[in-house]
Amino acid sequence: MVQATFKTILGGVCAPRGFKASAVRVPIRKLKKDFALIYSEVPAAVAGVFTRNRAAAAPIEVCKAQLKKSTTCSAIVVNSGSANACTGEKGLQDAWAIVREVAAALRVPESQVMIASTGVIGQLLPIEKMLSVIPRLALLLSEEGASDVAEAIMTTDLVRKELAIEFELSGKDVRIGAVCKGAGMIAPNMATMLAFITTDVAIPQPLLQKALSAANQKSFNRISVDGDESTNDMVMILANGRAENAPIAENSDEYSQFEHALEYVMTELAKMIVRDGEGATKFVEITVSGARSEHDAEVMARTVANSSLVKTALHGEDPNWGRILAALGYSRIDFLPEKVEIRFGDMPILNQNFEIVLDEAKAKAELSKPDVSVKVNLNLGNASATFWTCDLSEKYVEINGSYRS
Amino acid sequence: MVQATFKTILGGVCAPRGFKASAVRVPIRKLKKDFALIYSEVPAAVAGVFTRNRAAAAPIEVCKAQLKKSTTCSAIVVNSGSANACTGEKGLQDAWAIVREVAAALRVPESQVMIASTGVIGQLLPIEKMLSVIPRLALLLSEEGASDVAEAIMTTDLVRKELAIEFELSGKDVRIGAVCKGAGMIAPNMATMLAFITTDVAIPQPLLQKALSAANQKSFNRISVDGDESTNDMVMILANGRAENAPIAENSDEYSQFEHALEYVMTELAKMIVRDGEGATKFVEITVSGARSEHDAEVMARTVANSSLVKTALHGEDPNWGRILAALGYSRIDFLPEKVEIRFGDMPILNQNFEIVLDEAKAKAELSKPDVSVKVNLNLGNASATFWTCDLSEKYVEINGSYRS
Repeated sequence: MVQATFKTILGGVCAPRGFKASAVRVPIRKLKKDFALIYSEVPAAVAGVFTRNRAAAAPIEVCKAQLKKSTTCSAIVVNSGSANACTGEKGLQDAWAIVREVAAALRVPESQVMIASTGVIGQLLPIEKMLSVIPRLALLLSEEGASDVAEAIMTTDLVRKELAIEFELSGKDVRIGAVCKGAGMIAPNMATMLAFITTDVAIPQPLLQKALSAANQKSFNRISVDGDESTNDMVMILANGRAENAPIAENSDEYSQFEHALEYVMTELAKMIVRDGEGATKFVEITVSGARSEHDAEVMARTVANSSLVKTALHGEDPNWGRILAALGYSRIDFLPEKVEIRFGDMPILNQNFEIVLDEAKAKAELSKPDVSVKVNLNLGNASATFWTCDLSEKYVEINGSYRS
Repeated sequence: MVQATFKTILGGVCAPRGFKASAVRVPIRKLKKDFALIYSEVPAAVAGVFTRNRAAAAPIEVCKAQLKKSTTCSAIVVNSGSANACTGEKGLQDAWAIVREVAAALRVPESQVMIASTGVIGQLLPIEKMLSVIPRLALLLSEEGASDVAEAIMTTDLVRKELAIEFELSGKDVRIGAVCKGAGMIAPNMATMLAFITTDVAIPQPLLQKALSAANQKSFNRISVDGDESTNDMVMILANGRAENAPIAENSDEYSQFEHALEYVMTELAKMIVRDGEGATKFVEITVSGARSEHDAEVMARTVANSSLVKTALHGEDPNWGRILAALGYSRIDFLPEKVEIRFGDMPILNQNFEIVLDEAKAKAELSKPDVSVKVNLNLGNASATFWTCDLSEKYVEINGSYRS
């Protein structure tokens, strides 16, 4: 986990130099902004990570094809309301049509445009309406457009999620800006979440991809709301070099600093998604330490985070540590139950050899806080991993029983 | 799935010849019967399957040790209210003390007694009180005791779950009786569920184990309430040979008939558990057909059954088939989304090539039934698997937010 803090600045994805953004209301499903554009004045190095869902949506396929053709990108176009998933050949044609229209409006090659969608699965996009507003989307591009994008990509999200930081890299002030949406259907391996990151750092594309993948592994892949994994997840980063730092070299200190900063931004965004989880009333941090390997720690933390019984107990502020041990037990990782220690925050609950040191009243008080921390020490090794999740509330059921209506 | 029907008889685990049962109130946690005994007048062949949870409870360890010592068993003692899990050395000592006391009361060798527990994790049994009532438990044994056992093993269960059948095997009328508890925490791989099966069939122990394992794979391992897997699950069968059939031989027709009957009994019990799932308002049968292998079909059916988004949609009677496709997509099984067909009962929802034939009003009406059937055809092969689950309701969250209080 990244401990350092960075200087936070305003401006979201438009904070880094040379980026503009805009959003309009089509409308696709709700009466709000739902169609957005992020634009780099100069072609930017581009990298992405995508859902592993086999029923991946049309925009995912388009982006993967684009990345094979070009390592640079000028614009990302994104809509909410309809996921353009499970829409077959027509869905793919629609996604390509949007890409072409955006390229034309921005006067950039078609290979320079990426596309993303989020929303209901199995519905076609209102393609004619969308194509007709693209010229206006291009016209509205401005350095003040970041928060419009944050609004446009929201679905069941209750708050906008964006962040920008500034830090020094080889004597230059460089910036990273980011926006994401999440809320429901958030799982390990980034279920329905979109995140777009901009930076003015100069970095070769292969290193950009390396940094994004590494940071993603410790941020968006370590959050969970309900364990479902979506058809449309993607995280994409554009790096346009406008900070004019000497391009980052492999294995350099600068690379480490950049990856570190990126992990910080992505972890903060990941936590925002968890805080805004559907029906969430508590933010829960689960740390498994004393593991034989980081992989073991991660699998065990994820298993605890995904347990409906743990999540409902936390919702009920019930210090039912037995459910935590039971979840560790079915993670399929080898461990010794009698060596496990459990704490809530700094409060010891279970010592080794099943010595229960739980003070029911104090533990309930600890769990009544909006931010809850569960710490498991396996006492087997030195590796650890942290996972973020939320509680499971009646509200989650209510929201998801009628999402489409 | 077993299609044949069998003659249902009364008497639960006491229906087969030579079995008696009893139950008393200790009380351990609730003011109800919570301590029970199942007894075979002659030593019976015994077989069992147990949880794979690494934090397995003391009784699980005791039973595994007993099975290494002996292939026959005279009695199973079981309590609810406390799981005797995560209780360390003292928990093990307590379990052995109960086994010894039961053996003494029944005048059988210690190796002839099996033990099971279910309830809250991490609490010691009230061992003195339990030991003191064992003589009374032995005294109360009767052929009318089966439903007392069914009551005694209930935790959050709302109904007793028992069944007995009679069928002909090589010219003899033979019987199988069974009792189980389930309700919450039911997962694939049989989370907190106990099932005890008795039969008067004569069958060698290795074949009994083979039949139990095979039938378990298609019954208790194909149900799910919340995806959690418990520390205490076990399914155990006693076969005492009192029907006086010629002992079943390997690879014989009689073996197939017996396994078939056992699968029927266990599947019926498994469905009872799902119907009584915590907060369940709907019984959901999920069938994946047209798969390349039964394994593929099973994994995909299980993934759909465990999706919180699918389960909340079914609860809300929302025909949101996209969530079903999304869940198939993250099952990690290779398939072609465009070849998938989905039906609710006999009603087509999605045809191949994403042709949506959903009639919203009719589909909602179909989903408003208490029994819902989701049928997925992958159109890739001939294998299929069926999985049973329930919807996810606000009530589940309510029950599990305060289970201990």
